[in-house]
Amino acid sequence: MEFLQPDYRLRITKLQSLLQRQGIEALVVTSNVNLLYVCGEVFSGLAFIPQEGEAQFFLRRPQLHPESTTVHYVRKIEQITEHIDTASLRSVALELDEQSYSDIQRQRKLFPEAELHNATALLREARMVKTPLELEQIREGARRHVETYKIIPSLYRDGMTDRDLQIEIEREMRWHGSIGLFRCFGSAMEIFMGSLLTGDNAGAPSPYDFALGGAGTQALPLGANGTPLRQGQAVMVDMAGNYGVYYSDMTRTYSIGRLTDEAYRLHELSCAIHREVMQRAIPGTSCAALYNDSLHMAEEAGALPYFMGTELQAQFVGHGLGLQINELPVLMGRSKDCLQPGMVIAFEPKFVLPHIGAVGIENTYLVTETGVENLTPAPEAIIDLTQR
Amino acid sequence: MEFLQPDYRLRITKLQSLLQRQGIEALVVTSNVNLLYVCGEVFSGLAFIPQEGEAQFFLRRPQLHPESTTVHYVRKIEQITEHIDTASLRSVALELDEQSYSDIQRQRKLFPEAELHNATALLREARMVKTPLELEQIREGARRHVETYKIIPSLYRDGMTDRDLQIEIEREMRWHGSIGLFRCFGSAMEIFMGSLLTGDNAGAPSPYDFALGGAGTQALPLGANGTPLRQGQAVMVDMAGNYGVYYSDMTRTYSIGRLTDEAYRLHELSCAIHREVMQRAIPGTSCAALYNDSLHMAEEAGALPYFMGTELQAQFVGHGLGLQINELPVLMGRSKDCLQPGMVIAFEPKFVLPHIGAVGIENTYLVTETGVENLTPAPEAIIDLTQR
Repeated sequence: MEFLQPDYRLRITKLQSLLQRQGIEALVVTSNVNLLYVCGEVFSGLAFIPQEGEAQFFLRRPQLHPESTTVHYVRKIEQITEHIDTASLRSVALELDEQSYSDIQRQRKLFPEAELHNATALLREARMVKTPLELEQIREGARRHVETYKIIPSLYRDGMTDRDLQIEIEREMRWHGSIGLFRCFGSAMEIFMGSLLTGDNAGAPSPYDFALGGAGTQALPLGANGTPLRQGQAVMVDMAGNYGVYYSDMTRTYSIGRLTDEAYRLHELSCAIHREVMQRAIPGTSCAALYNDSLHMAEEAGALPYFMGTELQAQFVGHGLGLQINELPVLMGRSKDCLQPGMVIAFEPKFVLPHIGAVGIENTYLVTETGVENLTPAPEAIIDLTQR
Repeated sequence: MEFLQPDYRLRITKLQSLLQRQGIEALVVTSNVNLLYVCGEVFSGLAFIPQEGEAQFFLRRPQLHPESTTVHYVRKIEQITEHIDTASLRSVALELDEQSYSDIQRQRKLFPEAELHNATALLREARMVKTPLELEQIREGARRHVETYKIIPSLYRDGMTDRDLQIEIEREMRWHGSIGLFRCFGSAMEIFMGSLLTGDNAGAPSPYDFALGGAGTQALPLGANGTPLRQGQAVMVDMAGNYGVYYSDMTRTYSIGRLTDEAYRLHELSCAIHREVMQRAIPGTSCAALYNDSLHMAEEAGALPYFMGTELQAQFVGHGLGLQINELPVLMGRSKDCLQPGMVIAFEPKFVLPHIGAVGIENTYLVTETGVENLTPAPEAIIDLTQR
């Protein structure tokens, strides 16, 4: 029996055609996230993908597999030279953005004659357009995501802080199958299961490059910071998915009592941007246009000072997602990418209102042959948690 | 007012004396975990620590700070050259094990004339012995850790799986202040809040280099895998701390009904190894001896085939911890480290019994001037969850 199921063979083929196009002889995959991509498993070791022929898998620890000529057990990665003529390779792509300098130095020694290329860029490009199995898993995750959000109003109790409500949502996420762990791209990126923002904390800048910030805690300065949920405040829940292997992303806004008219107006503006910009997008639409059109609608409505933050404003309005929460494409002004069928994108035009909090919604969209499909359909209006 | 509080100045001084001893002119810190160490904050940017003189902090995003001559705002890290004569440095230590190859390549360009050294090794050495503030924070975290564990028996319900019980413990951890996020050393290491093992899953090998394994899920092959908690099984709870900024680590074993006599015997053996090996340790005791003496006691008791796993056996019996769950020293046969006052160590002699699960305990110990102090004192006997 083959180690690789058909969908993974498709992914290898896709990577091989990228290698061919770029004239790179082989690709080495060692990060957990990219091992999940190329074979559906995290293991200790490496995957070697030649420009042509079979991918080879070198495992440093016992894991159960069907008998396969492509799976080899080794004590250390240097032993791949017993199976592959690595010394004669003239070019190789290593995961330069995902692996440490020391790890790359060690891998590099296996290919003394090879010119070094960046496998991270190549893998991120391949992962940008999802395979059928990936879409199936994302759909199932998004479905669970929506189910979890239905429960949120019932979790609210008077006197809660942002953190209290987040803890109860985390538990529901776990009950609905979330693995909890958050995989992000970029060594400086960290987050714990998502973000819940209310009041002035919604505008607090954070060192992380997510759409919004929040003061968080000393150890993790992002998101909820213990702010009491008070009358007249918005509660933005952006607790992301990973209900299985793949992420979905979804934001809904709740309120404690009634908000100002301005808050409802900007929330409706976010929904309108979804309808006018994202849901009218088709394959070929440029990601820069999606950002610029959103920005333009915010500007027309006089809402630019609140768009994607106040003190610090994110320079993007959405992002690809899959095995990591922040994949390609990025919906930003300087993106060169255009939508392609099979891309999965979180779109999140949001507004931060001083003293009130953040408003707006985020959905996960699949780009189809003719447009986009919302994978996280759920009521979009602000739900008053005190009226449940 | 100074940006750095006195305890952080102590840390900088310690790092500077390591730089002096090794003849390295400067240290550059960019990882979140080591920024927390040198200044108590995660920020986007870098810290520059010269062998002598004031550490300088370069921030890429707004964060609130007292006026300080050592804090500078920059758009990109290349602008540090406007503040520091980086071109003339002949040696510099960068975080080669914690930062990506691409990040290091970019940082390296700032120091074109400098010989490159590994800051990770240096920082891990400095962090191995804790400062007074670190010890205060670890003590407080360990106290909350113990409080959380007291609640575990009340969380059990008939019919639960390992995962069900873990979810309820996670919630209690969060209510007791856990930040949730797990920081590990090593780019391949991942874990979500800890590990709960029962039955045959306790012996399942995992690709991660933790003390025990567990099949987990496809996306995160570690720990609980949905095994029902059944009569006659042990339930090992190793849900680690981070109740604040610092980790503590603690394992207790529970049971569903009565276990075999062998299970109680090996659990008592683990407690005896704590008493005979760890609690008799003093400054100067070698970490290799702590491992070898533990191994010897397991061997004398005929328990070697079950020690630290079955199919795959961990080659260590404990580890330092602090800002990450796996710090120095490592209690393993080939360690060259000896205990020093101020080290904090998790000691976890464990046994895996086929069909039953894992037994044994783990405590976090502080090495004092005269011995060790258990920071996680709590009943050590196996608690029957059906008898609560």
